[in-house]
Amino acid sequence: MDLRAYDRIVEQQVAAGVDGLIIGGTTGEGQLMSWDEHIMLIAHTVNHFGRDLLVIGNTGSNATREAVRATEQGFAVGMHAALQINPYYGKTSRSGLLNHFRAVLDEGPGILYNVPGRTGQDIPDDVVLELASHANFLGVKECTGNQRIQAYAAHGISCWSGNDDEAHAARHVFGAQGVISVTSNIVPSLYVRLMRQQNDELADSLQELIAWLFCEPNPIPVNTALAMCGLIRPVFRLPYVPLSLQQRELGAKLLRAVAADLPGVSDIKVLADSDFKLVSRY
Amino acid sequence: MDLRAYDRIVEQQVAAGVDGLIIGGTTGEGQLMSWDEHIMLIAHTVNHFGRDLLVIGNTGSNATREAVRATEQGFAVGMHAALQINPYYGKTSRSGLLNHFRAVLDEGPGILYNVPGRTGQDIPDDVVLELASHANFLGVKECTGNQRIQAYAAHGISCWSGNDDEAHAARHVFGAQGVISVTSNIVPSLYVRLMRQQNDELADSLQELIAWLFCEPNPIPVNTALAMCGLIRPVFRLPYVPLSLQQRELGAKLLRAVAADLPGVSDIKVLADSDFKLVSRY
Amino acid sequence: MDLRAYDRIVEQQVAAGVDGLIIGGTTGEGQLMSWDEHIMLIAHTVNHFGRDLLVIGNTGSNATREAVRATEQGFAVGMHAALQINPYYGKTSRSGLLNHFRAVLDEGPGILYNVPGRTGQDIPDDVVLELASHANFLGVKECTGNQRIQAYAAHGISCWSGNDDEAHAARHVFGAQGVISVTSNIVPSLYVRLMRQQNDELADSLQELIAWLFCEPNPIPVNTALAMCGLIRPVFRLPYVPLSLQQRELGAKLLRAVAADLPGVSDIKVLADSDFKLVSRY
Amino acid sequence: MDLRAYDRIVEQQVAAGVDGLIIGGTTGEGQLMSWDEHIMLIAHTVNHFGRDLLVIGNTGSNATREAVRATEQGFAVGMHAALQINPYYGKTSRSGLLNHFRAVLDEGPGILYNVPGRTGQDIPDDVVLELASHANFLGVKECTGNQRIQAYAAHGISCWSGNDDEAHAARHVFGAQGVISVTSNIVPSLYVRLMRQQNDELADSLQELIAWLFCEPNPIPVNTALAMCGLIRPVFRLPYVPLSLQQRELGAKLLRAVAADLPGVSDIKVLADSDFKLVSRY
Repeated sequence: MDLRAYDRIVEQQVAAGVDGLIIGGTTGEGQLMSWDEHIMLIAHTVNHFGRDLLVIGNTGSNATREAVRATEQGFAVGMHAALQINPYYGKTSRSGLLNHFRAVLDEGPGILYNVPGRTGQDIPDDVVLELASHANFLGVKECTGNQRIQAYAAHGISCWSGNDDEAHAARHVFGAQGVISVTSNIVPSLYVRLMRQQNDELADSLQELIAWLFCEPNPIPVNTALAMCGLIRPVFRLPYVPLSLQQRELGAKLLRAVAADLPGVSDIKVLADSDFKLVSRY
Repeated sequence: MDLRAYDRIVEQQVAAGVDGLIIGGTTGEGQLMSWDEHIMLIAHTVNHFGRDLLVIGNTGSNATREAVRATEQGFAVGMHAALQINPYYGKTSRSGLLNHFRAVLDEGPGILYNVPGRTGQDIPDDVVLELASHANFLGVKECTGNQRIQAYAAHGISCWSGNDDEAHAARHVFGAQGVISVTSNIVPSLYVRLMRQQNDELADSLQELIAWLFCEPNPIPVNTALAMCGLIRPVFRLPYVPLSLQQRELGAKLLRAVAADLPGVSDIKVLADSDFKLVSRY
Repeated sequence: MDLRAYDRIVEQQVAAGVDGLIIGGTTGEGQLMSWDEHIMLIAHTVNHFGRDLLVIGNTGSNATREAVRATEQGFAVGMHAALQINPYYGKTSRSGLLNHFRAVLDEGPGILYNVPGRTGQDIPDDVVLELASHANFLGVKECTGNQRIQAYAAHGISCWSGNDDEAHAARHVFGAQGVISVTSNIVPSLYVRLMRQQNDELADSLQELIAWLFCEPNPIPVNTALAMCGLIRPVFRLPYVPLSLQQRELGAKLLRAVAADLPGVSDIKVLADSDFKLVSRY
Repeated sequence: MDLRAYDRIVEQQVAAGVDGLIIGGTTGEGQLMSWDEHIMLIAHTVNHFGRDLLVIGNTGSNATREAVRATEQGFAVGMHAALQINPYYGKTSRSGLLNHFRAVLDEGPGILYNVPGRTGQDIPDDVVLELASHANFLGVKECTGNQRIQAYAAHGISCWSGNDDEAHAARHVFGAQGVISVTSNIVPSLYVRLMRQQNDELADSLQELIAWLFCEPNPIPVNTALAMCGLIRPVFRLPYVPLSLQQRELGAKLLRAVAADLPGVSDIKVLADSDFKLVSRY
């Protein structure tokens, strides 16, 4: 793990005014880490940046015991809250969802995370509403759209949009608290502006970049972008691989258009295939 | 892990003429095991039953490095083939899918496993066709329906249905080799008959039982059934919880209707809520 | 892990003026922890007490790869230094010792730890002298006696005594910097006084208590003492078991004699055998 | 792990008439493996060679929970017996030793292993005698000398010598069952002869080779020898490093003297320093 590159990026997030970070989410490739790496990264972030922003560990799992243990360890090393996914891939019943979430919320403050496009299973509204009474329930990161955010907000439930393209509307029209964003890893100050004040022009201007950042499953594009910006080494852990050359060329153009808002970037390179290293073994 | 109960169930599978077993699939709660437990169970099965049936380890993972290592270890302990899932939850690009599957197939013979309802991502036909030329490609466990199985079969690709309710037709109409079945954990001899010879009456007669076995995400119903049959202890690892009492009563009725084909079962009990133990911590 | 009990004890160490803590040494049963627990505990200590005392992780191992990884993780979560044991049980050659220690010292500041009574192998003087030129070499925790400490001190090497009964002399006569002490877990302020200023009377008065704390392999007596003082729950992880009743009775008498210097202790109980719980399984 | 090299060596052991193998002992660098590697290697050996020789897993540990779990897994994958070390480095009391050994013997047949030069703690006679009544007690691998073996044998306790230089006498004079040998990894047929029949001339003739095999902590010389014989790749996991060039030259001479009894060896090379690769990281 390249902690120097990590720290530089986090410093830029802090400088841009970002409120918090998810550590080891899918964007951060938590599912490719061992738990000791994962907890180490949470602890490292707490130590270095815990006074500057909220450190939210993605300590959920589709195995409840793992999630409980990781969440317990995350709080032991000082994380401020946990992001709690429903049991992806394995899935479970309504009663299983309630039991799972109660077990992990008992460990400390948590945000539920609903992304059926990844998990294969939606967290139903009534499950969220039932869990909302738990003392450690903080709200929901919701990826199924702004109608649902609006409905949750009407119940007084805090929502964070999980869709970068809808986040501006989610915040200023539908009652979301904010966004848990992929794009803000690249242009944090622009996303801070988008969240702090309604700005339709800025929101519209970012749509093409956002579309590119989701042209393949995240975090493939964002990691390709960070590598082209020189912010990380061009190393991919499989199953992730860089975007194609054609996609990289489009990305470079879009990134150059926001160059002034890319902190710490002096040059944007369209890397060659041979510049990338793929890692498939320990 | 209750290896005595496990061995008794496997003995009955062997006696019923089942050709092979998936070790640590979602039905077998592989995602709730640590890798050492998982590999231990593969090795144990090879030692005790490897001369009686094919031992297929579910050594895939959404992290390529984990999948490669587990697959390597599975072959080292004697498994005959691997079941290889695409990277669920994390997902990846077409190129990422190819890279991932090639990395794991390089370790030994493998069956691809396509279940987008769990993984959040379909393995496209052209990816399967491209991988079919790999020396270690054995075929596909396909859960998206018999049309696709028919199309793959037309290309000479071996298919196993992943849908118990469609498996009889898959086998006798659409060209599947067989089924990788949940229901056969309960009534192995009936599924062996269904696969060996067309028998529409038998196939129809099982539909209600199959429907019940999928009334909640698998393996919730099958584990509830095994507990009610006295074949396993009534212990659930979260996020799995037993079926509701009402569902258990229906299940008992359906199980009693096939009592003659339930090997090793002398009594079917509608267990009470208090009979079950839920495990949420290490 | 009972972090509340842990935090209370560490708070008392801080209040007593202790300079630093070893996390997960043999006294702290590091060898009974998984690495994720171990690193979690280092991180937790850094977060809560890192501004009050030096946090020294016992991140060594007899497997170099494990030691390198744990040391790297320990520094990533903010520990100030590492304690580095030579490869116990496995042992190695002179050249192996040098290679091992260089690999771990390359990760950050470290104190070598020589305790042949545990490791089965002495770290020879010439190995220590050769490693002393490494930029990250901080010194030696030495358990073979004060003559050796004196010789190292003459070479300008910082030494900490690993023998509580000799530590006062080590500090005031033989040139040691201080002690890495077991007894100070019980009576921290007395050990702080012993180290800060020569006090033969105090040193003599503690010999009987020290002898008791080593009447069986450490940490058996100190953990028995902490349990009798009510500072920890009376739970032992095997292979550790409590002292015998006779030894507990003697210990209670000795502890009552220093009751005024036992922070946070209101009552010293001679616990019964049935008060203790032994843990031998996960 | 190079399983091909491993299998070739084991085949030669079988061909030479060796009765059993310790898997993952200190000679086999078990302490440098993760538990999943360790259990995998036991399972692999059972599958490939379990009908040809006894497979004895070194599933002990200085942490009782680890030892219990590893021993349970080892038996689950078919090992015939376990080698059980006392808690090295951590050490414990007499009562702790009894509790530890009973916990692991409860899992299945086990041989105690006494090697105070590695563990820092002798297993006292009375502990061995007390454990001898356990149903799963098989005997002792004893490294403290033949007097003790003689005394144990007088009590009807099976003993295996852990000292290659004394093993012939142990077997034919002092009542040992045999030897658990390092040297037999190199010259298995000679050790089989030494154990089957008294042969003082042969025993004497091997003393110089044995002395060389212990000129540095085992397994440094034996691994250097295997590499020089071309039986394994010249890769060392730290803290182990190859013998010095001078020692390698002496070894080559001694190995050539027994060339006729080195199975599978066509050439013995004095490798250069640059031929060896040292591994210190994952």
